[in-house]
Amino acid sequence: MRYGALEGGGTKMAAAVLEGNRIGERVQFPTRTPGETLPELAAWFRERKIGALGIASFGPVDLDTASPTYGYITSTPNIPWQMCDILGYFRRELGVPCAFDTDVNAAALSEWRLGAARGADPMLYVTVGTGIGGGAVINGRLLHGAMHPEWGHILIAPHPEDPMPEGNCPFHRGCLEGLASGPAMQKRWGMPAGELPDDHPGWEMEAYYLAQLCVAALMTLSVRKIVLGGGVMGHRALYEKVRVQTEKLLGGYLTSPNVRDMEKLIVPPALWPDSGLVGAALLTEQDERITLG
Amino acid sequence: MRYGALEGGGTKMAAAVLEGNRIGERVQFPTRTPGETLPELAAWFRERKIGALGIASFGPVDLDTASPTYGYITSTPNIPWQMCDILGYFRRELGVPCAFDTDVNAAALSEWRLGAARGADPMLYVTVGTGIGGGAVINGRLLHGAMHPEWGHILIAPHPEDPMPEGNCPFHRGCLEGLASGPAMQKRWGMPAGELPDDHPGWEMEAYYLAQLCVAALMTLSVRKIVLGGGVMGHRALYEKVRVQTEKLLGGYLTSPNVRDMEKLIVPPALWPDSGLVGAALLTEQDERITLG
Repeated sequence: MRYGALEGGGTKMAAAVLEGNRIGERVQFPTRTPGETLPELAAWFRERKIGALGIASFGPVDLDTASPTYGYITSTPNIPWQMCDILGYFRRELGVPCAFDTDVNAAALSEWRLGAARGADPMLYVTVGTGIGGGAVINGRLLHGAMHPEWGHILIAPHPEDPMPEGNCPFHRGCLEGLASGPAMQKRWGMPAGELPDDHPGWEMEAYYLAQLCVAALMTLSVRKIVLGGGVMGHRALYEKVRVQTEKLLGGYLTSPNVRDMEKLIVPPALWPDSGLVGAALLTEQDERITLG
Repeated sequence: MRYGALEGGGTKMAAAVLEGNRIGERVQFPTRTPGETLPELAAWFRERKIGALGIASFGPVDLDTASPTYGYITSTPNIPWQMCDILGYFRRELGVPCAFDTDVNAAALSEWRLGAARGADPMLYVTVGTGIGGGAVINGRLLHGAMHPEWGHILIAPHPEDPMPEGNCPFHRGCLEGLASGPAMQKRWGMPAGELPDDHPGWEMEAYYLAQLCVAALMTLSVRKIVLGGGVMGHRALYEKVRVQTEKLLGGYLTSPNVRDMEKLIVPPALWPDSGLVGAALLTEQDERITLG
């Protein structure tokens, strides 16, 4: 059977057909309005005769299967997409089983099943880019809980030398996204993160913030693997800085051999930039209501 | 069948026989050395002809079933108990199936199965006392992960008016336990927490710290219920203060109806002070290797 995968982002929609866990044919459409973009996608999938579709969407989304708005994009600032029933649309239009989750949960799933966190349970995938979001696999399943995790909004301690210690989140003073996202770095330093020189102190500060994320992942989920992806992590030297700062913040407290090797604990995604798209297809496997041939 | 329950603490060991989820006969021994205390406990259980034993132990403990020291109390500062094979001892002495976990995981389990968090999944139980520790149930199972969660050592932001913003943890500057445990309060204010007057600013500060814990539980585990127990929570007015501060810190960000009612979200334990002891017996149900009649 051919699996369809849709990764819906705020600026573009990526669609693909997966064949044996590999991306076959693929296409990309700009995200315009639902009325314009969804029919383009449906036509593309219909022509390719997919047997099931996995949808990984930007959010916030409603993942509560008991809710009347399950499968909707909900309170996004992207107005035309507010309360868009994206799951219902594809179910009706394609007439095949469709699974649905957040983009970052899909990425977590693919990295756990096929990528950098194979065999590591629990694992956490975090994207550090325009926003910060995280998805976790625990006991072989994506964690949803009451809604879905919101790793970008954990509260962290500001760096003593941060000129913008309150961050730039409209909801929270001092949350991770407000202090460590790409836009936060740009606002703090007056230039895009990608243009900061390698020896700019902004990188050490960023590592300090991401290390607090890693400590939180260890203390709350007792993770075996932390996969850090997203645009900001394109600065590859950041991984080692995060590892060093995480070890420093842990202060020798965790003695389990399972989490002592920072090199193995904190890693880049293996499927980047396709973690989300591959994960979208894998969502169909996670949905207990979908039986696949 | 009669289930035995053992809650092993650093100062006392509580043992009980459970009949239909209720504590029947019970006994308590002071925690002396393993050579003195374990035989007393084994004799007591032997006389009561239990069919299975659940052991909830103070820690740190080794919960990795693949480890050669699985079931041991490991690097405790309580010297005679270092590397004590408590699980192996009772298996050998009693010849019945024995399950093993941390004291706080056992308390989480009982509050989820029979107490204040029935039907709430994921849920988090946190004890706030001499130390701070947490246990979570996710998808019907206790979370273990690479070791076990260490909620006491999440890093939080110090209160701007805290005279002791570094906390008193020997491992970490500014972790939850270092800032909000009973001994931290005592060190900060020069008197035991229980003696602070109701209108002492220490309670608002404590609520600010525990609210950061609640925010972390929502953002990382997407919990449906947070049960706060332990000696410090004996100051009952603290619950409402924690709810108010949690709502304030969330800043209206989480809109899911599942987590909007703070009164239902943040609650006291229903089985206190027996959450751990009842949970110890329930551990036998969680152990897939134990088949019970």
